[in-house]
Amino acid sequence: MQFEMQDYPSILLSNAVNEFASLPGLGRKTALRLVLHLLRQPENEVQHFADALTRLKKEVRYCRICHNISDTEVCPICQSTRRDRQTICVVENIQDVMSIENTGQYSGVYHVLGGIISPMDGIGPKDIEIDSLVERIVPEQIQEVILALPTTMEGDTTNFYIYKRLSGTGVRVTQIARGMAIGNELEYTDEITLGRSILNRTEFAG
Amino acid sequence: MQFEMQDYPSILLSNAVNEFASLPGLGRKTALRLVLHLLRQPENEVQHFADALTRLKKEVRYCRICHNISDTEVCPICQSTRRDRQTICVVENIQDVMSIENTGQYSGVYHVLGGIISPMDGIGPKDIEIDSLVERIVPEQIQEVILALPTTMEGDTTNFYIYKRLSGTGVRVTQIARGMAIGNELEYTDEITLGRSILNRTEFAG
Repeated sequence: MQFEMQDYPSILLSNAVNEFASLPGLGRKTALRLVLHLLRQPENEVQHFADALTRLKKEVRYCRICHNISDTEVCPICQSTRRDRQTICVVENIQDVMSIENTGQYSGVYHVLGGIISPMDGIGPKDIEIDSLVERIVPEQIQEVILALPTTMEGDTTNFYIYKRLSGTGVRVTQIARGMAIGNELEYTDEITLGRSILNRTEFAG
Repeated sequence: MQFEMQDYPSILLSNAVNEFASLPGLGRKTALRLVLHLLRQPENEVQHFADALTRLKKEVRYCRICHNISDTEVCPICQSTRRDRQTICVVENIQDVMSIENTGQYSGVYHVLGGIISPMDGIGPKDIEIDSLVERIVPEQIQEVILALPTTMEGDTTNFYIYKRLSGTGVRVTQIARGMAIGNELEYTDEITLGRSILNRTEFAG
C-alpha cells in the first residue's frame, strides 16, 4: 500500500496527514492512521488536541534561572525550599531533567544548556546557556556544578569548556560516573566503557 | 526512563503530551518526543498543525453517494465522467478506497460501508451503510457489485448479508479473488489460503 499525496480524496485530510507526517519518526501511513482516528473522535476532543498545541507554543515559558520548561517565570524546582540550591546539575535538555528527577537520587537544582557544543552542527558556546550558568555561580553561592552531559565527544568538549570557564570561581566541578551499567555482564560491555571502569574503580564499601 | 505525568515540569507540556499519547500506537515517550519537537518549531508552524486538525474535523464531509471522505458534497470519483458508474466496489473504509485506487486496476465507483458487521463489537447491518447501498442499485442502474471486504469472519458475514439483500435486484454480485499473494512461495502460504487457491483455480491463459 503506497499512498501518494494526490491520492487523498480530501485536501483537509491531506493537510492533516502532512502535518503529522512532518513529525520526526512518523511516516505517511502512520500519519494517515492517526488522522483517521481523530476523524472518528467527537469534535470537541479534536478541538482540545488542537488547543493544547496552540497553547503549548503560545504560552510555554522557560525558567528564568535554570531554563527548564515551566508554566511560571521561575520553575517549581528553582522555587522549592526543599532543594539544595547550592548544587547545580548541568544537562543538555528538558528530557534530561525529567530523567534525573525520575531517579529520585538528586535534590539539587538544574541548569539546562539547551544543546551541547557541536562544531559539526555549527553550535558554539554562545549558542547555548553557558554564560548564564557562569553568572549563577557567585550570586547563588554555588558550591558544586555536576556535569551530566552525554558521554560523547560533543559532551566531553562541552564539559571541558564549562570546566575552563568555571576555573577560578572556586566552585567544585564534578561529572556523573561513567562505568558499567547496572545489571550488565562484563562480556557485553564495550571495551572503552570497561577499560574506563577499571581505571576509575572505587573503594569497595563491603 | 519512566516519565510519570506528575513529573512533567509544565501543565501545558503535560496536556500536549497527553493528547498525543491518546492516539493509537503512540506511547508517552514518543508523545513527549513529538511535543518537544513541536516546541522547537516556529509558532506559525505549530499553529498550522493545530488549524489543520480543527478544520479537518469541522469542515470534512462525506460523499452523499458513496460515503467516501470528500471536500465536496459529491466526491471526485462519483463526479467523474471517466469512471464506470454502473459498477460499485463495496469496501469497509476510506483507506480501502485509497488502496484500490493505488492499484490503478479499477475504474468503477465505490461504496464505503464505514465498518463491517461484527456481533462481538455490537455492530449490526443498521450501523453501517448497507441500506444506502441497496438504495443505489435501481436509480443508478448498477450492473455489478464487487465485494471487497476483509477476508475475515466478519467480512464473510457482511458479504453474505449484502448478497442476500441484493438478491432479487438482478445485480451481479462478485467478490475479489482470494488466493496466493503475488510473489509468495507455496511453502510460506497458509494452508487455508493455499487450499482455497487450488479449489478456485482458474484457466491457464498461456
